[in-house]
Amino acid sequence: MNCNVVKGTRDFLPQQMNKRNYIFNVIKEVYKLHGFSQIETPALENLSTLMGKYGEEGDKLLYKVLNSGNFLDKLDFESEQTKDYKKLTNKISEKGLRYDLTVPFARFVVNNRNEITLPFKRYQIQPVWRADRPQKGRYREFYQCDADIIGSDSLLNEVELCEMIDEVFTRLSLKVEIKLNNRKILAAIAELIQQEDKIIDITVAIDKLEKIGYDKVCEELIQRGLTKDNLNKIEPILKLEGDTKSKIHALKIFFQNSTIGQKGIEELEEVFQTIESLKLNSKVEFDITLARGLNYYTGAIVEVKCVEVPMGSLTGGGRYDNLTGIFGMPNISGVGISFGADRIYDCLEELKRFPQDISNTTTLMFANFGKQEEKQCVVWAKELRKENISAEVYPDSVKLQKQMKYANEKLISYVALVGERELEEGEIELKNMITGEQKKLNIDQIKEMLKS
Amino acid sequence: MNCNVVKGTRDFLPQQMNKRNYIFNVIKEVYKLHGFSQIETPALENLSTLMGKYGEEGDKLLYKVLNSGNFLDKLDFESEQTKDYKKLTNKISEKGLRYDLTVPFARFVVNNRNEITLPFKRYQIQPVWRADRPQKGRYREFYQCDADIIGSDSLLNEVELCEMIDEVFTRLSLKVEIKLNNRKILAAIAELIQQEDKIIDITVAIDKLEKIGYDKVCEELIQRGLTKDNLNKIEPILKLEGDTKSKIHALKIFFQNSTIGQKGIEELEEVFQTIESLKLNSKVEFDITLARGLNYYTGAIVEVKCVEVPMGSLTGGGRYDNLTGIFGMPNISGVGISFGADRIYDCLEELKRFPQDISNTTTLMFANFGKQEEKQCVVWAKELRKENISAEVYPDSVKLQKQMKYANEKLISYVALVGERELEEGEIELKNMITGEQKKLNIDQIKEMLKS
Repeated sequence: MNCNVVKGTRDFLPQQMNKRNYIFNVIKEVYKLHGFSQIETPALENLSTLMGKYGEEGDKLLYKVLNSGNFLDKLDFESEQTKDYKKLTNKISEKGLRYDLTVPFARFVVNNRNEITLPFKRYQIQPVWRADRPQKGRYREFYQCDADIIGSDSLLNEVELCEMIDEVFTRLSLKVEIKLNNRKILAAIAELIQQEDKIIDITVAIDKLEKIGYDKVCEELIQRGLTKDNLNKIEPILKLEGDTKSKIHALKIFFQNSTIGQKGIEELEEVFQTIESLKLNSKVEFDITLARGLNYYTGAIVEVKCVEVPMGSLTGGGRYDNLTGIFGMPNISGVGISFGADRIYDCLEELKRFPQDISNTTTLMFANFGKQEEKQCVVWAKELRKENISAEVYPDSVKLQKQMKYANEKLISYVALVGERELEEGEIELKNMITGEQKKLNIDQIKEMLKS
Repeated sequence: MNCNVVKGTRDFLPQQMNKRNYIFNVIKEVYKLHGFSQIETPALENLSTLMGKYGEEGDKLLYKVLNSGNFLDKLDFESEQTKDYKKLTNKISEKGLRYDLTVPFARFVVNNRNEITLPFKRYQIQPVWRADRPQKGRYREFYQCDADIIGSDSLLNEVELCEMIDEVFTRLSLKVEIKLNNRKILAAIAELIQQEDKIIDITVAIDKLEKIGYDKVCEELIQRGLTKDNLNKIEPILKLEGDTKSKIHALKIFFQNSTIGQKGIEELEEVFQTIESLKLNSKVEFDITLARGLNYYTGAIVEVKCVEVPMGSLTGGGRYDNLTGIFGMPNISGVGISFGADRIYDCLEELKRFPQDISNTTTLMFANFGKQEEKQCVVWAKELRKENISAEVYPDSVKLQKQMKYANEKLISYVALVGERELEEGEIELKNMITGEQKKLNIDQIKEMLKS
């Protein structure tokens, strides 16, 4: 009998859950401190909500759910429709699993527009599903941890998101670099060489600069239809050196005749100035190569790199000016970020940065020496729990060795030994499982000791 | 453009999330206090894991996911297989959405048998999906909150589960009655009338006693193949009156010749005796009509009824002796409960029992009077957050009225007004949004005031 999980999905054991919850809780705490409110949306969405929102590739990666009942009922078997899987899919499947949290959030905003006040700051931590080929670090079911502000185009929002990124990674003791760009600057590059319609090709190629190097990027740009002359024009931009200030200074000159370029630089400058006043722990840098494949960004683009471990982006986000437009509610600007919990997990694991005290297990276990003893132990356990001390009674009166092994593997701090004599005396032999130390105490003394 | 949720599923707004989280947190706290460890399993399971585990009706209600890519690739269109939706389903769908948390847990135990120590106490709070006809209080996507102990047949586990039920509802301020039965007693009834193979029919009918009354139950039993003579024999059992003790006393006589009956009574008595010593807040009662449709129970059966609001069972559970057997790991006994968060929510809502202080929103909002002022406000907001005080700066310098409306609707406690003059003086005009009171303070005074 097969008892495996679906390929690309995972079971989470208690120790893994503790570590995952530690990450989620840090993110939640920071979101809440900044006034973000939690929402949840259903895992199942109408396919009409999801299709066409993630490009052609995304449509393929959507998990589609079979209609219930006799889904073949109204189909004409002689027609071509039943032999072309794409056409058939439309006939037999109306629902799909959420692919990210951004599109469902846009739908949520429109669906609940009378219930929410704009600007609306929401966070959402839920799994998403993608029918991707599973590989190391890439799963078919994984959590996203999103925060978005919708209904305000103030750049304070961009600043706040960077602040939250900084706070999350400070709390997690992970050293990161926050990289910022602005889609308007990328648009200005396309404009500069009069290839506005190629902006996606250009950004997709530029995005690979760090990974494949300048020469390969040029090859790709040529393949995508740029000319040698185009490349000569943008070379100095892509090869900009120096700190954020000097880069921005240089860009001001490049784009002196570009309205969109000037606007992008202005936005960047304002964001950087405010961030400077906040004295973040993380370095925040302008990175013109930062493009993020996602088409819908229109302003700021942000990504986070772990400084200590080579790893893809730990957090990403940006501004999108018209996300709810696809659901009939135009002119609502939003900006958001998403933490990648799995990559953060891997970083913390590799650097051994998970705190020691997140094990979240039972504080005290009563060993079980038989029916008479266990009756007293369940009462004492209940008393401890009233003081908020987690306690359990080993359920079976098996060999003590087996019970101690259980306590050990569960990382339980104390084992209370209550045998016949202790029962008579009303005392408890308490064993500290870390030091091995044992002493006799009564239940009130134990309560006092463990309450702190 | 359609922006609705899938029928039978729900968006959760911030206020609903606060209430839901309140319930989930109470349940989690109690689970943890009793030494239960959290696990999670994937939403997607292989259909081979799920099919056949919930009866024929359950198989129909499973959400099945289309294979990705060209799922028609290897199909023969001339064969009958493609015209029968059930046969076709097997060909084009291999995965499904989890229907409950119990079967995935059984699979989890077998799959991770080398990583866990028995007895294993786990809790799991995750959504499940059922392709049911949506109706009031019945959803296609809803959370289950399960706790199970697997690998121990001690009745202490049954007691602990009742204790946890009592603690959860005490913390939630909901008055409930815990009803207990034992499947062995139901088996003894079937044995008594020599209709052992009809035990499911009998229990399904008996389960309706409270809802449809004795006469209708008899009609149904006749329909299901019992004789008049059978009914005469079991009538005194079904019409047992009195408290738990006297009912058990009567049953001992009825079942004096039934091994399984005696065993069931013995188990019940032991559970009741230990529970009595724990002085629970909730009444715990023996209810012989309690059957719970679920086939896999073999010992204790438990259900919880709200005393103050007419509502279906708020919690249910029981013992199953061979759940992991279906995945090739026999002889592992388990017992568990599941809280129905939606019904608990409805009860608390109807009785207005949600606490006032769960709103979980921003403590202090800085109103925005312009670029100069906001620069100072973001620094002050950061200082407050360092003291764990949630704070936000309204992102746009729009009319104050609009900003106050936002603060009001978000139930923010304090609004800080920092205009040109305050900025010069380094002071903050602080408005208490509940009393309307206003006073001038500096940031340190505000920190001091809000830290408590």
